[in-house]
Amino acid sequence: MKEKKVPTAVIQRMPRYYRYLGDLLERGIARVSSAQLSRRMGITASQIRQDLNHFGGFGQQGYGYNVEVLYNEIGRILGQDQEYSVIVIGAGNLGQAVSKYTNFNKRGYKVTALFDSNPALSGTTVAGYPVLNARELPDFLKENHTDIAVLTIPRAGAAETAKVLMEGGVQAIWNFASIDLDLPDDKAVVVNVHLSDSLRVLSYKLRELRSEENPEED
Amino acid sequence: MKEKKVPTAVIQRMPRYYRYLGDLLERGIARVSSAQLSRRMGITASQIRQDLNHFGGFGQQGYGYNVEVLYNEIGRILGQDQEYSVIVIGAGNLGQAVSKYTNFNKRGYKVTALFDSNPALSGTTVAGYPVLNARELPDFLKENHTDIAVLTIPRAGAAETAKVLMEGGVQAIWNFASIDLDLPDDKAVVVNVHLSDSLRVLSYKLRELRSEENPEED
Repeated sequence: MKEKKVPTAVIQRMPRYYRYLGDLLERGIARVSSAQLSRRMGITASQIRQDLNHFGGFGQQGYGYNVEVLYNEIGRILGQDQEYSVIVIGAGNLGQAVSKYTNFNKRGYKVTALFDSNPALSGTTVAGYPVLNARELPDFLKENHTDIAVLTIPRAGAAETAKVLMEGGVQAIWNFASIDLDLPDDKAVVVNVHLSDSLRVLSYKLRELRSEENPEED
Repeated sequence: MKEKKVPTAVIQRMPRYYRYLGDLLERGIARVSSAQLSRRMGITASQIRQDLNHFGGFGQQGYGYNVEVLYNEIGRILGQDQEYSVIVIGAGNLGQAVSKYTNFNKRGYKVTALFDSNPALSGTTVAGYPVLNARELPDFLKENHTDIAVLTIPRAGAAETAKVLMEGGVQAIWNFASIDLDLPDDKAVVVNVHLSDSLRVLSYKLRELRSEENPEED
């Protein structure tokens, strides 16, 4: 199946489809029409058909989608049929929150270690995972194949750490440091998470709600 | 200025513009063309002009955008010229990480308290903020005007807590519980943060990178 060049916006909607289909599956629902998915997800039925056509369709006219088939296929597209070894850089609250998030483990993301530059944390554990000194990272990567690194460190050290990770063969970075990392496309992929962006969208919506309540103040 | 009915996708790009413009401002850059913004942000120049036209334009032909004016105006649109009182529901690692994120405070988001259902945490503090028992929430809201609640609790209690928050007059919920909260549009706004969605996008990209390296395996 040809899957290249799928628009980013489509890719970013796929995890939502996956979540909704997972909910349907849990509730024992075997098939769903694009109209039903549309109502539930707030996306037009035509958009849903277009999105899924990027990956070969899956739907049958007059029947709708087989929930389990579609769920598994989207899961495969999203790499959910694989296991990943994961390290977490930064053992602060966010690094700990990510490490403890049990769903990651259930879903095939296996944390092997955390790293922190604070020597006081070396030798401690988080949710049973060892916290190592950040200096040990290059040697660790030589000995332990690592698929994904989660960056939960401040902005200042992020670019340098990303370089060490790439030199150590890590090909995927989930980046919570508030800086957009720009890595060579052919070497590594990165998803930058800017939590403050979503807080600003919330603030926008709150302002809009309040201006609807009190239009004269706007 | 008419600002209603701006497409969600446009709103979701605004925080990125705001961050990039903030970077330019810090570096002392006074003006920027849509072509320059385009290269830096990976969005077409025509998309940028369209996006900003939703809010009245700001650009001048042949001059580009005045960085400071545009930064301040987008900040106003995103409600960054306001102060918000914020409570955090859930004093686990994620709740603590959000509370300690000093940039929120700098940006006008003032944490007043955390709430947790674990009685052992009542009376403790996180980054100087008191942790109260979740049962005290209704009374607290009667006495303390609260703009935004951050939900960092498990999925199971999220909908009920959202109800308590709305009854207490909270109009904005930043929801990290892994469930999509659907609140009455005229009463409250919500932004659902699904961290696992972005991890799945990362897994998709990693799979794509690897299949480009080893096309025969795909």
